[in-house]
Amino acid sequence: MKKIIGILGGMGPAATADMFQKFIQLTPASCDQEHIPLLISSIPDIPDRSTALLKGGPSPLPAMQDYVNRLISAGAKCIVIACNTAHYWHKDLQASSSVPILSMIETTADAALQSGLKKIGILATNATLTTGLYKQEIEKRGLTYIEPSPEDQALVMESIYTLKAGNFDKAHEIMSKQKDNLFAQGAEAIILGCTEVPIILSKEATATPERYLDATLLLVKRAIHWYNEK
Amino acid sequence: MKKIIGILGGMGPAATADMFQKFIQLTPASCDQEHIPLLISSIPDIPDRSTALLKGGPSPLPAMQDYVNRLISAGAKCIVIACNTAHYWHKDLQASSSVPILSMIETTADAALQSGLKKIGILATNATLTTGLYKQEIEKRGLTYIEPSPEDQALVMESIYTLKAGNFDKAHEIMSKQKDNLFAQGAEAIILGCTEVPIILSKEATATPERYLDATLLLVKRAIHWYNEK
Repeated sequence: MKKIIGILGGMGPAATADMFQKFIQLTPASCDQEHIPLLISSIPDIPDRSTALLKGGPSPLPAMQDYVNRLISAGAKCIVIACNTAHYWHKDLQASSSVPILSMIETTADAALQSGLKKIGILATNATLTTGLYKQEIEKRGLTYIEPSPEDQALVMESIYTLKAGNFDKAHEIMSKQKDNLFAQGAEAIILGCTEVPIILSKEATATPERYLDATLLLVKRAIHWYNEK
Repeated sequence: MKKIIGILGGMGPAATADMFQKFIQLTPASCDQEHIPLLISSIPDIPDRSTALLKGGPSPLPAMQDYVNRLISAGAKCIVIACNTAHYWHKDLQASSSVPILSMIETTADAALQSGLKKIGILATNATLTTGLYKQEIEKRGLTYIEPSPEDQALVMESIYTLKAGNFDKAHEIMSKQKDNLFAQGAEAIILGCTEVPIILSKEATATPERYLDATLLLVKRAIHWYNEK
């Protein structure tokens, strides 16, 4: 069996490319053939996850199931989803998938617990916050969960959609203040809990990795571990 | 019909990620859903193309055919190959593919002709040079084709494999001298004719785009044109 990892991406494409780059960078390969085999779906017409959860827009689930099935039909033996908010449908996707779908949320919460830090901040979409995706997993592990204020959270969303529209510098300017505010609220580490956020704060996360839990990076490490298991 | 573009990649993964990024950057999208739908194979166990052509190593064709078929079975309606040297097998791949496979070599040679420049240098693998992949297409269009000297070409190869092994800075230091030598030989523009080379010389190609024919970028533009055709 060829252990191919399928990436359900397109939510958005830049976040998918970031995950792909992290697979490449985390693989100690001296030639092409030693890299991890990946199949990537970056078909971006999946209905907006936040709009579905907060404004009653069309569900992204059927399109996500379709693309997971395409990855499996092409040979993927394990799936990762390059979008935190989409994990709201993780159980539904797993139920209709013949291969395991590793959870970015549980993987990140496990890493928070293992870090030994107690107060965990979060930068994520409104939908990820409203549905309590991370809150439940963080508090279940006995840790304190710290969200931005409603005013700050509106700016987090503005930053994420500014990046999706291609303006990195403006997205960074807005997001940088929001992580400062979370640290000021007592956060000892911040979950970068939307796949756009590690791109926006990549300089900070590289400089002081102990202060950030990059959900994309942690899921990639988890997937490489799956790949290397006998 | 959903016009999904399939990328046959993994040769190597970094070059595939570069092509993916170029699709994202060249799409004027204001939200996820406006991006180009892509399916990407980055399964890197394809036998080395240069070793096959120059040292009688195993042919990469069966693996490439397998992965093209996986992309088609998952829904790709058009294929691009993220490797110049692999285009030696373009006709064989097209013969066994039910969808069009756009040629990076012909696309780049067309762009050289349209540039109005007459003397075209090349930075590519030994195998791409030995098989005359670009030479034939450039000279067929009435242009002059300029290769590195054998000593310089050995350094071009060293730079490419240094990048594949993850050392950008050393790869750049070596390659930078080779492009200077081609310009000194009279080249008016240089084809970046191995998918690793636009990564190595990305700063130069961005600063003076009129002096470089980035084969990856040109193929992405050609594919986006295919996508936008009625």
